[in-house]
Amino acid sequence: MLERPAMLLLIPGPVQTRPEVRAAMAQDIAPWDRDFQAVYARIRERIVGVAGGTPGVHATLPLQGAGHFVTEAALRTFVVPGGKVLIPMNGAYATRMARLAREAGREVVPLDLPDTRGATAADIVPVLEADTSIGHVAFVFNETGSGIVNDADGIGRAVRGLGRRMILDAVSAFGVLPFRLDEHPECDVLVFTSGKCLEGMPGMGFAVARMDRAEACAGHAQSWSLDLSDVLANAKRSGWGSIRFTPPVQAIAAFDVALDLYEAEGGQPARYARYRANADALYDGLAAIGLRPYLEKQHQGPVIVTVHQPSDPRFDLMTFVEALKRRGVLISNFYNTSAPTLRIGAIGAITTDDIRRAVAAIGATLDDMLAKAA
Amino acid sequence: MLERPAMLLLIPGPVQTRPEVRAAMAQDIAPWDRDFQAVYARIRERIVGVAGGTPGVHATLPLQGAGHFVTEAALRTFVVPGGKVLIPMNGAYATRMARLAREAGREVVPLDLPDTRGATAADIVPVLEADTSIGHVAFVFNETGSGIVNDADGIGRAVRGLGRRMILDAVSAFGVLPFRLDEHPECDVLVFTSGKCLEGMPGMGFAVARMDRAEACAGHAQSWSLDLSDVLANAKRSGWGSIRFTPPVQAIAAFDVALDLYEAEGGQPARYARYRANADALYDGLAAIGLRPYLEKQHQGPVIVTVHQPSDPRFDLMTFVEALKRRGVLISNFYNTSAPTLRIGAIGAITTDDIRRAVAAIGATLDDMLAKAA
Repeated sequence: MLERPAMLLLIPGPVQTRPEVRAAMAQDIAPWDRDFQAVYARIRERIVGVAGGTPGVHATLPLQGAGHFVTEAALRTFVVPGGKVLIPMNGAYATRMARLAREAGREVVPLDLPDTRGATAADIVPVLEADTSIGHVAFVFNETGSGIVNDADGIGRAVRGLGRRMILDAVSAFGVLPFRLDEHPECDVLVFTSGKCLEGMPGMGFAVARMDRAEACAGHAQSWSLDLSDVLANAKRSGWGSIRFTPPVQAIAAFDVALDLYEAEGGQPARYARYRANADALYDGLAAIGLRPYLEKQHQGPVIVTVHQPSDPRFDLMTFVEALKRRGVLISNFYNTSAPTLRIGAIGAITTDDIRRAVAAIGATLDDMLAKAA
Repeated sequence: MLERPAMLLLIPGPVQTRPEVRAAMAQDIAPWDRDFQAVYARIRERIVGVAGGTPGVHATLPLQGAGHFVTEAALRTFVVPGGKVLIPMNGAYATRMARLAREAGREVVPLDLPDTRGATAADIVPVLEADTSIGHVAFVFNETGSGIVNDADGIGRAVRGLGRRMILDAVSAFGVLPFRLDEHPECDVLVFTSGKCLEGMPGMGFAVARMDRAEACAGHAQSWSLDLSDVLANAKRSGWGSIRFTPPVQAIAAFDVALDLYEAEGGQPARYARYRANADALYDGLAAIGLRPYLEKQHQGPVIVTVHQPSDPRFDLMTFVEALKRRGVLISNFYNTSAPTLRIGAIGAITTDDIRRAVAAIGATLDDMLAKAA
């Protein structure tokens, strides 16, 4: 165990969880045990529901490991080897998605955009019109680099209108930002992980995919480990009550509890409202103590708030983060924006009361660091 | 939580763990937190020690997800695309390794062998001599299909003598079966997972690799997610105190505790002795109640014991496993041998007392199932 007092995690995942979720981690489970098959089946069904999909049309395809793994698996499975995929480049996770696609042998068409506003259909359409050989548009829904949100609904409609397909990295958006697969038949697949907005523990990735497309794409992946088509075939063979290969089964047990809490809270609208309130309180609170927002307010998403680091030469990010920890608050000790920022999460089992306490701690820590030495 | 009484897990992983290990799962951790960097660095060092490697020559390369992922990563990283790899085929996990290699675009040279004895240098040498274009031999150390052990030491010496390279799937062997990387410079990499003989929780894979070879193999993997060369580059950049991409960090915290317990027990010799005693007690005990061993005793490894299913037509594996669970013992409800078997693990936080209790429960369950109805 980490030898330290309780800490408030204000990071974009793995998030602060509720005690009930953590408690479910501390048990031995045989992953193929018949007693546990119902948990897998239940989680699959609930995820299709959260995704706004239709059972029989869409399927939940679990994949062990980091979010990057399931993102690469989605690219490998649905984009043919050598196929062209357009990626709007407006943040660190877009850059990573492009690298995943390139190293897998897919041709990335990058569309450079600023990291201070979300991409929209208007950005995408001219590129697709100019190059009819681009089969897919792939992008990050919530860009946890800066905190912007790309317009998945609008881009999806444009992609559909032009007869192309879509892959959505919803890692830090799923369950919070509204998007319904039933309204987006052009979307082959969306992906997310257990430790983000659904407030589970890290360890599992999930794809929600069109079954017809996953089956049509059998043989594309060039990797057994990262083949979502094979994950689907395995699930169908096993009657949906198992996960292909040994999973981090404790994280799955915890995720089942996290889904209970999500539903009890009121699902996507309620969770969006809580995170939106957290992000607004953070945005306004940090501005009130003199920290300059990285984004204009209309571009600020509900998941993560970034503010410019103080220009005072005495400011040092790692020193600041460690000092803030001594006040019981943990924020990221790195940043993913083009300019140096503080990166503070608004998600997890936290409320605006926690945010207010955190803003006060941030202010006091900055005072210690900068004012006292003046 | 699973709503049922305490259960003794007799399976080849994820294994029965100690309460201290499980307890470490129930905490929130930010994976990049400076407080946790020492845990990563410590685990890396300890694993190199267990592998019999040398710091600076060998490095621990963690990879999230199932054992198959890190096995595929090892094949992708160290075998050039299109390169030939000889795989002795004597069990279910050999078959899986071959599939991982083939789908990754490597050319598998399969060597068919029975699943009732371990492969030796004598099996391998003629194939290598006949085809000098085979660059690698890759194999499963402990075949958890049947319970046989392939002779890693002897095969390694032969591979070295013929100027080839070796990849060792030590998933269910690491920490128990003796093998020292320092004595095997021909071994590019061995792989294992957190939830097997080191008695941690599932979720993390680990490779222990020669750093010179991992660096020479940069650019081979054709997958960013599964590129161990990039995992090494990332570790060197971060000073070994981080893991590339978000890991199942609770499983890592638990693994650190599991390593404490492993060292306190006396390391590899002590754990081998305990598992050997477990397997022998299981082998002899099951024979004593009339179950026919799948392997001759001299081929029986210390990790898993398989016995033929009773030929009585009233026997049904799933019904039997569920009935045995009601007596508090869980064994595999599937088998991976060429003939129908019962598959019972000898590993995990268990002793011969547990084995004796389990054998009695197996006997009583069989009596209920077969004798009473007679």
